[in-house]
Amino acid sequence: MQSWKTLARTPALQRGKYLTVEDHTIQLPDGRTIEQWPWLITPDYVNMAVVTTDNQFLCFRQTKYAVPGISLAVVGGYLEPGENPLQAAQRELLEETGYAADTWTALGRYAVDGNRGAGVAHLFIAQQARRVADIHADDLEEQELLLLSAAQVRVALEAGEFKCLPWAAVMSLALLRLGG
Amino acid sequence: MQSWKTLARTPALQRGKYLTVEDHTIQLPDGRTIEQWPWLITPDYVNMAVVTTDNQFLCFRQTKYAVPGISLAVVGGYLEPGENPLQAAQRELLEETGYAADTWTALGRYAVDGNRGAGVAHLFIAQQARRVADIHADDLEEQELLLLSAAQVRVALEAGEFKCLPWAAVMSLALLRLGG
Repeated sequence: MQSWKTLARTPALQRGKYLTVEDHTIQLPDGRTIEQWPWLITPDYVNMAVVTTDNQFLCFRQTKYAVPGISLAVVGGYLEPGENPLQAAQRELLEETGYAADTWTALGRYAVDGNRGAGVAHLFIAQQARRVADIHADDLEEQELLLLSAAQVRVALEAGEFKCLPWAAVMSLALLRLGG
Repeated sequence: MQSWKTLARTPALQRGKYLTVEDHTIQLPDGRTIEQWPWLITPDYVNMAVVTTDNQFLCFRQTKYAVPGISLAVVGGYLEPGENPLQAAQRELLEETGYAADTWTALGRYAVDGNRGAGVAHLFIAQQARRVADIHADDLEEQELLLLSAAQVRVALEAGEFKCLPWAAVMSLALLRLGG
């Protein structure tokens, strides 16, 4: 089973650090070539399920531009230049919630779009989280911090209330890992 | 808690039916405006956890352009014009595997990128699936059909072997829904 080969890549569009589009020329294992395969370069990001010292899940209620209405959300954000995923996760947790966590478990790295790239989502569980500082979020959305039990997270997941794909992914992977 | 308003949208790039990039002018609830916010229009898609009549999960081993090496994968694909998500899911199941399923459960609709759009992922569980036809996949990747037990899916999820975000999301949501 062979991977596709990238024969050429041409810049097609750039929007600062948030989006670059390239056109790729690709060779399939059977020799066929595909021209102008659009490829998306967006920053890698982290999302995490945060469990406090008293076993509550730290979530948000918030709006998000691509989501109609209000959604449950998780802690996360883009990696900054030079950061590894765990460093980014620890920074985002502190900035967005004022919490720090003792125990970190990596839940894997996932291509956001298997065809076009669009960066990698690094997912984590942060456990033994406790309030250590004030919130210093630089996010543009209003966020309301929320503590939910595992049972409440499960009901919300089943109701589709975590309305972005990485948020539903990290919360369901975390519930499975922590024992359903 | 108020949503952002789209004041204007300008086409920035088009690549057939697979990608349109727009620049949006956005107004935040506090009155500030953001210029040239990149917005991605890609086709909505379906992904599903397929459980056969003898309680095996129908998966693939395959390559994918955005994924290094080989990945476990799930059944899915883009909605065609005029299709609703369930119709697309049933068509993709038949085309990619030759299976049909009696019982369908919607696991929700999820914005792929909460900031930039990039379409909606519609996730499903298909149960009581059985072989009814030959495979007629039009996918460009080689795929090897695979039957896994729930326990094997869980181990593979924990090892990060479903390497695309929607695949890990649908399998973990399905395991939770079906009882962990």
